[in-house]
Amino acid sequence: MPRDRRRDTPGTVMEAARRARHAAAELASFSADARHRALLAVARAIEEHAAQILAANARDLDAAGELVAAGTMSDALFRRLRLDESKLRDLLAGIEQVAALPDPVGRITLATELDDGLRLERVTCPIGVIGVVFESRPDVLPQIASLCLKSGNAVLLKGGSEAEHSNRILARVIQEAESSAGVPDGALTLLETREDVAALLGADQDVDLLIPRGSTALVRHMQENTRIPVLGHAEGVCHVYVDRAADLEKALAIVLDAKVQYPAACNAVEALLVHEDVAAEFLPVVIAALRRRSVEVRCDGRALGLAGTADVRAATQADWGTEFGDLVLAVRVVESLDAAIRHVNTHGSRHTDAIVTEDPEAAERFVAQVDAAGVFVNVSTRFADGYRYGFGAEVGISTGKLHPRGPVGIDGLVTYKYRLIGDGHVVATYVGPEAKGFRHRELPLEDVVTSN
Amino acid sequence: MPRDRRRDTPGTVMEAARRARHAAAELASFSADARHRALLAVARAIEEHAAQILAANARDLDAAGELVAAGTMSDALFRRLRLDESKLRDLLAGIEQVAALPDPVGRITLATELDDGLRLERVTCPIGVIGVVFESRPDVLPQIASLCLKSGNAVLLKGGSEAEHSNRILARVIQEAESSAGVPDGALTLLETREDVAALLGADQDVDLLIPRGSTALVRHMQENTRIPVLGHAEGVCHVYVDRAADLEKALAIVLDAKVQYPAACNAVEALLVHEDVAAEFLPVVIAALRRRSVEVRCDGRALGLAGTADVRAATQADWGTEFGDLVLAVRVVESLDAAIRHVNTHGSRHTDAIVTEDPEAAERFVAQVDAAGVFVNVSTRFADGYRYGFGAEVGISTGKLHPRGPVGIDGLVTYKYRLIGDGHVVATYVGPEAKGFRHRELPLEDVVTSN
Repeated sequence: MPRDRRRDTPGTVMEAARRARHAAAELASFSADARHRALLAVARAIEEHAAQILAANARDLDAAGELVAAGTMSDALFRRLRLDESKLRDLLAGIEQVAALPDPVGRITLATELDDGLRLERVTCPIGVIGVVFESRPDVLPQIASLCLKSGNAVLLKGGSEAEHSNRILARVIQEAESSAGVPDGALTLLETREDVAALLGADQDVDLLIPRGSTALVRHMQENTRIPVLGHAEGVCHVYVDRAADLEKALAIVLDAKVQYPAACNAVEALLVHEDVAAEFLPVVIAALRRRSVEVRCDGRALGLAGTADVRAATQADWGTEFGDLVLAVRVVESLDAAIRHVNTHGSRHTDAIVTEDPEAAERFVAQVDAAGVFVNVSTRFADGYRYGFGAEVGISTGKLHPRGPVGIDGLVTYKYRLIGDGHVVATYVGPEAKGFRHRELPLEDVVTSN
Repeated sequence: MPRDRRRDTPGTVMEAARRARHAAAELASFSADARHRALLAVARAIEEHAAQILAANARDLDAAGELVAAGTMSDALFRRLRLDESKLRDLLAGIEQVAALPDPVGRITLATELDDGLRLERVTCPIGVIGVVFESRPDVLPQIASLCLKSGNAVLLKGGSEAEHSNRILARVIQEAESSAGVPDGALTLLETREDVAALLGADQDVDLLIPRGSTALVRHMQENTRIPVLGHAEGVCHVYVDRAADLEKALAIVLDAKVQYPAACNAVEALLVHEDVAAEFLPVVIAALRRRSVEVRCDGRALGLAGTADVRAATQADWGTEFGDLVLAVRVVESLDAAIRHVNTHGSRHTDAIVTEDPEAAERFVAQVDAAGVFVNVSTRFADGYRYGFGAEVGISTGKLHPRGPVGIDGLVTYKYRLIGDGHVVATYVGPEAKGFRHRELPLEDVVTSN
C-alpha cells in the first residue's frame, strides 16, 4: 500500500464519522413515525432493486467460486455469501419485524419532582454513532441498518471483501431510500478497506460503540485496538452444573442439547460439572450418550474413574476455560455447589451458565453467585439468544458487565439522558444557611413514548 | 524503589482482587436484610472508634501542617483532610441515609414467558468488584464503602497518602465490623501505594469498574492506562444557550448561578451562546453583571461588538471547549438554534448543557439533539448532581454514553443478568421443520425485591 494512501484514508473515515455524528444529532429528534416511514421505504427499495442486488451478488459469487475451486474458501462460507429470492424475502420480513417493534426512543424511565415547577426525567435516547464490522454474509447489512434506523443511531458499516459488490449495492439502495424519507446524509456510510477499519478503531471522538459480527479473532482484534466500547464477546465458555438434587433425565437432555445441537455456537456448553453424590450414577449414562453422538469427552481424575468406559481422554489444565466450538466436552466432578460456582467464576467467560437441580435453594444460590450475563435453571445454555429471548432481532451477545449485557436487541442500542425542566431555577436557592429543601417526589411513570 | 518490591506489589494487588472477586460472589447472595445489618454495624463501629479515628487523623494533620508551613500544601487541602466530631456525625448520617435507600439488588425489570414453564427474567445484580481511587478527603472512604456494601459489591480502595493514617484506621474499623456481620473477607481492601494503583489498573480479570474521585489529571491517567471501564468524566464543559425566545431575566439569573455560584465545579458553565436576535439586548446586561462578580469574559467577534463595554477580552479558538474551572466565561453569538446545538455537540464534553427559552419546540429540539448526559431547560447547569437529583449519594458523574450515565447513585453500582428458569427445556424443541413456536408473553412486573 503506498504511504500517501495510508495517510489519506483515516482522514476520510474521520470525516465520515464526523458526518455521522451530525446526522445522529438530527436523527435524535426524528419522531417514531418518521423513523418508521424511513424503514418501510428501505424495505420497499430493496424489493424494487432485487434484480440489481442479485446481479451484484452474482459477481461476488463468481469471484468466490474461483476461491472455492482453488481451495481457499470453504463451501460453508460460499453458501453464506449467496443471496437469492428466498433470502431476500427473509431479509424484508426481518426489516418489517424491526419496524413493528415498540419504539425504543423517548421512553421516560424515571420522573422526579425536585421542587415546584422543577421536574427531572430520565429518557431513553439513541447512543449516537455505531460502527459495525461484519464478515461475509451480506444480509447482515440491511439487518444492522434497520436496527440502527429504528433506534435513531447513525452507522458506519464495514463488510467482508468477499461481499464487496453485494454490500455496495445494498448500502446505496438503503442510502437512497433513507434520503428520500428525509434521513440526513451521513446516517449510513459503507467503509470499504481494511485501513478504514483501523481508522474506525481510532475514531473515538465520534464513534460511540463498536459491534463486531464475526470471528473471535475479529472481536479480540477490535477490543485490543480501540478506546471505543466494543459490544460482544470474544469467547463463550458456557457451563452446565448437574447438582446432587438434579433430575438426571432432565440433566441428560440438557447436556446433550447444549453440546450437540449446534456445537459451534457461542452458547454451546464447553464444560460439564457434576456433583460427586450423583457422579457415579450420571457419568456413565451421559458419557455413553455423548460418545454415541461423537463427542470427545475429556475427564478430570475423578470423572475418569467413574466414566464407566475407557473411551474418554484425560483433561488437561488448559481444557478448563477453553471454547472448543466443536464436539468436545470437558467433564469434572465437584464436591459441592460452592466448588461448582467457584469453577464457573474462575474459568467461565461470563456468557451463560446453567444449573440442573430440583432444589430451589441451590438454584437460587447458583443464580445469585455465578457471575454471567445468563444464569439458567434446568434449561439448555443454547437458549441464550436474542430471538429466543423475544427481543425480535439481535446485534450480538455482550459479556461485558455494564449496559448492554447478554443478548442485545433494539433496547441495547439506546442509552438515556437526564432532562431537567424548570422555570429559571438556580442552585443558589438550595444552598447555604437559608437553603430551600428539595422535595424529591417520585412521579408515576407513564411508560409512553413522548412527543420526541 | 527497589526492584524486588516492584515485582511483588502487583502480585499482592492481584491476589486482593482475586479475593475480592470471590467475596463479591458470596455477597451477591446476601439478602437485603443482611447487607442492611452489616451497614448499621459499620456505622456503630465508626461511632465507637471515634477517638481512635480522630487520633489517627491528628497524625495526618501533623504531617500535613508541616507541608502547609513549607508552602507545599494549600490551606484548602489541609481543611479537607481534617476530620472532627461534626464531620464524623455527618459521615454517620450519610451511612444511615445509604442504609435507608431502597434495595437496588434483585429487582426484576423484565419478565417474559417464553413457553409453558419457561420464564425469562432480567434481574438487577451487583457489578462485582469496584476499584476506587480517591484523593485526600478521608470521609470519602466510609461513604464509598457503604455504597458498595449496600449494592453488594466488593471494593478495592486507594486513598491519598496525606490521609494515610486516617484511611488505615477507617478501613480496619469497617473491615472488622463487616466481618462481625458475616461479610466475607476480601470485600473491602485498602491499597496503599502508587504501585498498587498501577497494579489495580492492570487487574482487568478481576476488577469490573474503576471510579476515580479526584482531579481531571487522575481521571485521565486512569482512563488512558486501563482496559477496565472507568466511571467518571475528565472534563465538564457545560454550555448555556440563550434562545431568541428566552425570558432574559431567567437567562441572567441562570447564567450568573451557573458561572458564579461555584465556578470550580464540573457542572459550572464554561461557554454562553446567545441567539443573535437577543444578543444586542442581553449581552450588555449579562456582561455587566458578570464583570461585577469579577468574571473574566472572553467574547467572539460578534459578542465583542455587542458587549457594550471594552472591559472584555477577545476569545481564542482554544477557549471553546475549555474547562476554565474558574471565574472565566467564553461568550459567542450564534445565528440559530441549530448553530447552538452544533457548537455544543462539537465543543461540549457531554456533561450538562442548558437552553433558556419559552418556546417548547426549541426546547424539545435542543433536548433531543444535544448529546449530553444532562440536557436542561430554563435551569442552571449546577443542578447536575446526584444529591440534587434525589439519588441519595453520588459516586461520580459519568459522561460515558453507556450505563451508568450522568450523576451515578446506588443504581449505577448494579447491573443486571438474565435468569432463565425451565423444567428441562432444550433448544432442539424449537428448531427445525417440526419446531415449536415461542410464546414470548410479557409478564406483569412486580417491581419487588426478590427473595435474593
